This record gives sequence, C-alpha cells and structure tokens, in this order.
Amino acid sequence: MPHGTDTLLLQLFTIFVWAKVFGELFERLGIPAVLGEILAGVALGPFGTGFVVPSTTVFAIAEIGAIFLLFTVGLETSPSDLVKVGRQSLSVALAGVILPFSLGFGYLMLRGEATHEAAFVGAAMVATSVGITARILRDLHVLKTRAAQIILGAAVFDDILGMILLAIVASMATVGGVHWLHLSIVTVEAIGFALFMIFVGPRVIRRVRPGLQRLSTHDAPLILSLAICLGLSVASTTIGMAAIIGAFFAGLIFADYSPEWNLQPRVHAINEFLSPFFFFTMGARLDLSAFSREVLITASIITVLAFVSKIVGCGLPLLKEGRQIALKVGWGMSPRGEVALIVALIGLQMNAISQRAYAIVVFMTALTTLVPPFFIKKLFRADAHSVELTPEQEEEELASEENVPGSVG
Amino acid sequence: MPHGTDTLLLQLFTIFVWAKVFGELFERLGIPAVLGEILAGVALGPFGTGFVVPSTTVFAIAEIGAIFLLFTVGLETSPSDLVKVGRQSLSVALAGVILPFSLGFGYLMLRGEATHEAAFVGAAMVATSVGITARILRDLHVLKTRAAQIILGAAVFDDILGMILLAIVASMATVGGVHWLHLSIVTVEAIGFALFMIFVGPRVIRRVRPGLQRLSTHDAPLILSLAICLGLSVASTTIGMAAIIGAFFAGLIFADYSPEWNLQPRVHAINEFLSPFFFFTMGARLDLSAFSREVLITASIITVLAFVSKIVGCGLPLLKEGRQIALKVGWGMSPRGEVALIVALIGLQMNAISQRAYAIVVFMTALTTLVPPFFIKKLFRADAHSVELTPEQEEEELASEENVPGSVG
Repeated sequence: MPHGTDTLLLQLFTIFVWAKVFGELFERLGIPAVLGEILAGVALGPFGTGFVVPSTTVFAIAEIGAIFLLFTVGLETSPSDLVKVGRQSLSVALAGVILPFSLGFGYLMLRGEATHEAAFVGAAMVATSVGITARILRDLHVLKTRAAQIILGAAVFDDILGMILLAIVASMATVGGVHWLHLSIVTVEAIGFALFMIFVGPRVIRRVRPGLQRLSTHDAPLILSLAICLGLSVASTTIGMAAIIGAFFAGLIFADYSPEWNLQPRVHAINEFLSPFFFFTMGARLDLSAFSREVLITASIITVLAFVSKIVGCGLPLLKEGRQIALKVGWGMSPRGEVALIVALIGLQMNAISQRAYAIVVFMTALTTLVPPFFIKKLFRADAHSVELTPEQEEEELASEENVPGSVG
Repeated sequence: MPHGTDTLLLQLFTIFVWAKVFGELFERLGIPAVLGEILAGVALGPFGTGFVVPSTTVFAIAEIGAIFLLFTVGLETSPSDLVKVGRQSLSVALAGVILPFSLGFGYLMLRGEATHEAAFVGAAMVATSVGITARILRDLHVLKTRAAQIILGAAVFDDILGMILLAIVASMATVGGVHWLHLSIVTVEAIGFALFMIFVGPRVIRRVRPGLQRLSTHDAPLILSLAICLGLSVASTTIGMAAIIGAFFAGLIFADYSPEWNLQPRVHAINEFLSPFFFFTMGARLDLSAFSREVLITASIITVLAFVSKIVGCGLPLLKEGRQIALKVGWGMSPRGEVALIVALIGLQMNAISQRAYAIVVFMTALTTLVPPFFIKKLFRADAHSVELTPEQEEEELASEENVPGSVG
C-alpha cells in the first residue's frame, strides 16, 4: 500500500524480527530476552549501525506498547491479593522503595545534578521487575516457600508505590524543582488515585459485570478493559501524570476478573506484538557515546546503590526472621526491568533528564537484571525439592506460570 | 507523555469508544456492529461533525488493523479444509467470483468509467464476508445442513480467489490500463503465490514445528506467526501486491496449527484492539457529499448487480439440486464486508478510484450486509430444529463460534 505504509511495514517487520532474534540468542545464553531486544535497538538503531531509523509512527506504536506493558503488569497485580500478602510484604515493599530512591536521589544531589534529574534516576531505581525472580523460583519449584511468597506479595505493593512515586517525580519536573505545596497536592492526588483504583475500581467493575453480559457487543469484557486502559491513560495525562500510570491502574481494577474473562492471555498477545517495538526503540534511543568514563563511573555507583538499597531495604524488615530469608528476599527484589526503563524514557521525553542519565538507567537496569539470578539460584537451591512432581502438580505449576507478575517479553 | 502522544492517546480512546458505542447500538438493532463502527467514523470524522480528525499515526494504526483483519480471515481459512469441501464449493465460489466482477466491471465500463475504477469496484463486489451468514446459521442451529456446509466451504475458496483478483486489479491500476502480457504475468504470479501458500506453506510450518518447541523464546509459535504476517505483508508489497494479500496467506499457512497453538483467540484480541480504528477511519474517509443523485443511482444499480450476481453465480452450479438450496447458498454468499472495504480503500490510496467510487463501494457493502439476513433467516427457518440442545451440544456450538470464518468486530 502506498501512503508510506510500505516503509512502515518494512520497519515493523525488521524491528520485530531482529528484536526477537536477539531475544532468542540472549535467552539461550541465560540472559533475559528483554535485554536482547534492547541491544537489537542499540546495534541497529541510529546511534549504532543506523540500519533501522524508527519513524515517528514506530515511536508512537512503541509508546502504545509501553501502555500495554503496564496494563499487563496491572492485570497481574490483584488488589484482593494485597490483603492476603499482608503487612509483612507491605513493609518490605515500602523500605525497598524508600531506600533506593533516597540513595539514588541523595547521591546525585550530592554530585550536584539537577533536582529533577536526580529524582527521575531515583524513581527508576525503585520498581522491582519480579518476572525474572519468579521464573527462577518456579524453575526451582520453590514458589511456595515463605521467602518466595513475601517476594511476590511485596512486588505487588512495589508496583503501586513505584507508580505513585513516578507521578510525584514527573510533576516535580513539570514545575521545575521542589515546591512543597504543589508536591503535597500531587502526592495526595496520586495516593488518592491509587486508593480509588484499589478499593473502588474493582467494585465498579463488579457492579457493571451483570450489565456486560447483557451487551450485544462480542466479547464485551475485553473491549471494556481496552477502553478503560485507553481512558485511564488519557485521564492520567490530563491530570498531569504519565499515561502508563493510568494503564497500570486500569489493569489493576480488572485483575480480579482477568481469569473469569480470560483477559490475561489475550492482552498478553497484544503485548507480544507491541512490546518488541518498545524495547527496540528503548535501545535505539541510547547513545552509546554518552558512556564517557565519568558516566560509566556514575553508572557503576548507581548500580551498586541499586543493589545495596534493595537488598538492605527489603531485607531489613525481615532480619528478625533470620539472615537467610532477608538475603533471599533482598536479592529476589533486586532485578529492575521495563518500568525502570519507562520511567527513564518519560524523563527523557519531558527533557527532565539528559542522555547521560538515560544511559545510566539503562546500564543499571541491565546489570540488576543480569546479576541477581546467580545469587537467587544459589540462595534458594537448598529449598529446591528435587523430588519428581506428579502430573497434576506439574500442570498446576504451568498454570501459575501464566500468572507470574511482570513476566514480559 | 509529551511528544504528541497525549493527543494520539486521546484520539485512540475517543475513536475506540465511539466505534464500540455505535457498534453496540447497531447490534441491538440487529445490524452488524461493523456498520456502526463505520458510521461512527462518518458522523465524527472530518466529513461529518469533524469531532475527530484522525492523525497520520491513527491512519497508520488503522492499516495495521487491516493487516490483522486479513490475517485473522486467513487463520480461519484452513487449507486442509479445501480438499474436504471439494469441487462443489469450488464451482460455487468460482461462479460467485466471476459473475459479480464481470457484471460490476462491465456495467461501469459501459458507463464509460476508467478501466481501473471499474476493475476496483468489480473486485470489491467479489469478496463474500461469511461471518454474518455463519452467525445466523449458528443461531438457527443449521450449520450442519448441506447448504450451510457448501456456503462455509465456498467462502474459503472465495477468499483466496478474491485475493488473486485484487492482486490482478491493483497491478492493472499501477500500470494504468490493460496490458495483456503484464496482466498474464501478474495473474500467474498471484496464482503461484496462492498455490505456494496453500500447498507448500503449511508443510514448511510442519517442518519447523519441532524446532519451534526447542526455542527459548516464550510463546514462539505466536511470535513466528506475527513475524510471518508482517514478513509476507512486506513481501507482497515488494512484488507489487497489496500488503493484506500477504497477511491473508500468512494466516492461511498457520490455519491448520491455529487450534494447537491457540493462535486464533490471541490474534483475534490484537484484532479487537486494532480493527475499530480501521472501520472508524473507513467511515472518516467517506465524503457523504459524494452521494449526488447520480452517484446514488449508480450505487443502487451496483448494489442490485452485487445481489443478483452472487445469488445467480453461487446458485447456478447448484440448480440441479433444487431451487431451494440454490437460493439458500446464493443469499448466504451475498453479504460483503471488510474485504470489499479494504479493496476500495486500496483503490483510493492508489488514486485508482475516485471518492465517488469509494462511496459506491461503501454503500454496496452496507446494503449487502443489511438485507441478506432477512432472507437467510426465512430460507433456513424450515431446517431450524427447535429441539432443546443438550449442554454438551450447546458447548460444542459455542466452541465452534470462535472458529466462524470472518466473524469480525
């Protein structure tokens, strides 16, 4: 078709295939596929070989991809689970959010960086991507251990806290600095938004559920969830928050109905199509020449802080249960992922952070994704039962596979 | 997010919601939702109230939507079924393709229209959209009758013949007129492409199937099918055919593996997200002022020809089995749908047809979608068994619902 679609299709095809080829190679080396998809963007993008220079439309599709990524994360964050996982997970998540942000933010402020740059990098250090941990724990068949349960519970709170923090940080960057009154208003707004979505949202869905079945539209629940995903994305940009925050909470309010309406695998399919464009363009935006010696040093320090702060922050509330469980949870909560990248991207788009800070976050994300698996495997190996599973158990494990939070790409 | 996404998201949200609201209203009135989605575009688009003026990105997303529409149609067109449905269905399909094209093309040529305009309108009159018929037959529980089986079988061939015809017509428009040598080359190419996809494509997939299971990529079959959908779309534009032809055949070669890999519901989810943008922009492109009195008369004649040609064309090969079955199949094959619209759209984008011809095709599609249900219901009612179904039968019917070819929107 004319109208520029030829080249659009060619770009989409090229990006999709290369992202997946790099992803496959990485998976075979035991490295998360997401990093491969990003590397494909670095290698083939304008700062690399220049083989693919994504058009505006591709970037727009990538951002819709980001929205669906967060929508999926939300769908896997069940509000009714929040009560079940309880206070222990909340304290782990809280400390594991406050410490990384404070250390990242504090360090960069001490170095004399701009406030919003420091705040964005700090916020990017917050969000745990529990998908990698969950996959390892599943492979070891230790998902039922206490440490694993705390990790999965804390990851739920962690996502929500991360979104609230992002809203606050982004509004700081908009205003350009720290205005306490404004900051308190945004904080209250963001927390109010979150509480509304956790407590009221699912009830609204429960209320409209009987009506949904009376609709003539084919597959009304999926359509409604997509409409609400788009609608809350628009709503959050309208009140000055990032679109992905709305998408995340849209997922959250549908999470409890996702199994009944078979939403997760189908939204995940949309994700499978769109997310490679997101990760590829993430890489394509990364200017490798930003990695001067100085930036590399800063990136390394930030990465160390990212590790230490999560391990200490998440481990500390558990110390009374023993050093072993604290370490397990700490390492298990260490991997960062797509949310960190999206936070950095939003900063870049708002001109709140520099190419350098963007490069630092990508560096930090890559290392916090690469290193923890070794330690998680080592720590949990003792719990791993090498007994053969019965077919029913195998099936149950496989079924729970689909519901692992944050397992993306 | 800045970068123009705010307005993009707002457009996507507005279009999605209005398309679905109009679709729901239409469904309640017993009219196919697709027509409602198109009307939403007419009413809110730049030629209507101007409430939503779709951006270039939205149009690009709509065209990706068209690709997934045809990919889904292909997925529901099983090549192994072609042998089963046999010669009877093939002759019904062949006559039901040749007659509408000839009558449409001939009439417009007689009126002195340009060759490529006549050819495009003729090609748009060809493709049966069997989804509406199939839904009615299912509701009446007559899917197992001979007439229904012939319709479903003929619809498979009809899709393939329609794609071949589109390739030929589009190449005529590119060259600008009828060049017999060129036309024969394109015809041979298109038929070769189709045969390759029907006979060789599925074998290739069967060959790589064991390898797919060894891949580390999560959900490799879905990824591969998406990659091949994009790849064949690019390939067909490269050899001068429309992208949707490649997408259709990509679906075709995966059709036999779709149940095993659970492709259909997941690709359909991508479709559910993208297709409203396609149908809305279809409507948004429709300039109602193109409907002068003269155009309305031509449109009415084309519509009558579209009915007569399908009913006679599809009925004639069956006359020896009785007038009743011939009429059933003829009316059952009458509804046109998304493929007709896409053909017209491609013509519009290639500047091969005018706004008038585009309006005529939309008019014809709307009426061939609106009228046949009454006759189909009337003709098949005699076969309808009013007996209560057992729960197992109900379930079976519901399961087959998911596999109804061409059921879109």
